[in-house]
Amino acid sequence: MKCRKCAGKAVINMRQHQLALCRDHFLEWIPAQIQRTIDKYQMFQSIERILVAVSGGKDSLSLWDILGQLGYHCDGLYIGLGIDGGIQYSEESQRCVQEFASQRNLTLHVVDIQEDYGETIMAMAERSTRGREKPCAVCGVAKRHIMNRVAREGGYNVLVTGHNLDDEAASLFGNTMNWIPDSLVRQWPVLEANHPGLARKAKPFCRLYEREIAAYALLRGIRYIYNECPYVEGSKSIYYKELLNILEEKRPGAKLSFYLSFLQAKENGLFSPSADPDFEELHPCPTCDQPTSAPGQCAFCRMVLHLV
Amino acid sequence: MKCRKCAGKAVINMRQHQLALCRDHFLEWIPAQIQRTIDKYQMFQSIERILVAVSGGKDSLSLWDILGQLGYHCDGLYIGLGIDGGIQYSEESQRCVQEFASQRNLTLHVVDIQEDYGETIMAMAERSTRGREKPCAVCGVAKRHIMNRVAREGGYNVLVTGHNLDDEAASLFGNTMNWIPDSLVRQWPVLEANHPGLARKAKPFCRLYEREIAAYALLRGIRYIYNECPYVEGSKSIYYKELLNILEEKRPGAKLSFYLSFLQAKENGLFSPSADPDFEELHPCPTCDQPTSAPGQCAFCRMVLHLV
Repeated sequence: MKCRKCAGKAVINMRQHQLALCRDHFLEWIPAQIQRTIDKYQMFQSIERILVAVSGGKDSLSLWDILGQLGYHCDGLYIGLGIDGGIQYSEESQRCVQEFASQRNLTLHVVDIQEDYGETIMAMAERSTRGREKPCAVCGVAKRHIMNRVAREGGYNVLVTGHNLDDEAASLFGNTMNWIPDSLVRQWPVLEANHPGLARKAKPFCRLYEREIAAYALLRGIRYIYNECPYVEGSKSIYYKELLNILEEKRPGAKLSFYLSFLQAKENGLFSPSADPDFEELHPCPTCDQPTSAPGQCAFCRMVLHLV
Repeated sequence: MKCRKCAGKAVINMRQHQLALCRDHFLEWIPAQIQRTIDKYQMFQSIERILVAVSGGKDSLSLWDILGQLGYHCDGLYIGLGIDGGIQYSEESQRCVQEFASQRNLTLHVVDIQEDYGETIMAMAERSTRGREKPCAVCGVAKRHIMNRVAREGGYNVLVTGHNLDDEAASLFGNTMNWIPDSLVRQWPVLEANHPGLARKAKPFCRLYEREIAAYALLRGIRYIYNECPYVEGSKSIYYKELLNILEEKRPGAKLSFYLSFLQAKENGLFSPSADPDFEELHPCPTCDQPTSAPGQCAFCRMVLHLV
């Protein structure tokens, strides 16, 4: 297969765009796509200070790489969760992130949950769910809390994450299979900081397939952790991804069209403004001062203070 | 497995309801469920005149049977489409419908498209799509037109169809995968006659799984056409049904929950009133007088008058 732009040897064929590209044109095309996404959804501007949440996987490290190439000033945030799962997951992922940052002379914040809060995610999850459930819900609460805390304390304008199209489509699929109004109304490539204590959040990879990012990371020689978190297996999001892959296989572009037609319908006013959870009353958590809708302490502080 | 109500031998286990029933209790349970659906969505009342669209399949004949048992006055409408497909589909389905009606002394209207409009559906489709597409779109336009015409001419209050949960969930799935606002806003178990020339439409089977109806038809000894329309094969709706079956297999009740949570979210005001296609301007077709949003003649008249 030949590159559409130079007729050289193509390294990737993106069937949904009917676009095959060679190495050089692909490595040019990806950052240009990301710039378009940033602009279209008004995610951030080049004068703003950006915090990238990096896990050590291909998505977040590629994102940090691309944002740098595009001239944005980005610092990184790595959260040490203390997950081993037989593959030294946290240890190995931290090594990848630190290597990436030091090679490029980038600023990296590291928060170690055990050091800062006395327990690993695993220990918190074990305690609060009595071992009945996977740690994913607890992990999500902790990550959201810490990302927001570091963004505020560091005076960052925006927090960006490496969620890709496969992630966003799977999340939308789950929200749609159960018609969860709050989640449907809230899902968007950028979430404004609609409350003084909350950071703006953006997902510049939301229109990029996972396989495109994997190809990018490979071609750029980015060293990342290949293993996914050991607790991902058997999760609903993996299941939804598999189903969407069946759809994509049958009709290339199905995933992208599912996600983009959702964004379009939303922009055209499909959802009622009164269904918008922004109207939800938030108050500062008496312990950490982050906004929460929970009565009393926020979910994270309740966990850390052993109230659950 | 034992019947939940009498501990006799169960003939069906409905995993999504965790309910196994014997023959007699199942044959009691189904009509009671339908009555609840009719009442919940205020589909029609017993004093109203009801027209049931019957295709000769298990769904529509079972519906006619159940509505009769529940004491509703229903006449039938059979539309002869002139589809053969190597299995004499139309001929055989008409035989099933006529046998059903005559055995029970019920009134049946038969509209033969070739007799009334000079061409079979196949011929119309062949002409208007130049053989490039399946006849399903043309067939849909024709059936909607004729059902509405007979309902109006016969002074019926409501037109009911045998769409079951599998049909409704597949249709919702398609509308969701492409986020088609009009279709999402319109889909509901009953559609009010919001325009003088349109009949109210209701789908009393919308909460019943296809396999439950198949079991009902079998146990009631209803003779129906086993073959589906030969053009259904390879259609998108079949494809969506297969995907939903994967979900259902993994989580019994997934299909029902997908559809019911959609209805619930809608009732709670998820969609914006301004996205409601009822605001669409309709005018009477200058040829047939049925309301249409098309400029000039309605889609059916354009087809019959060879304007497409």
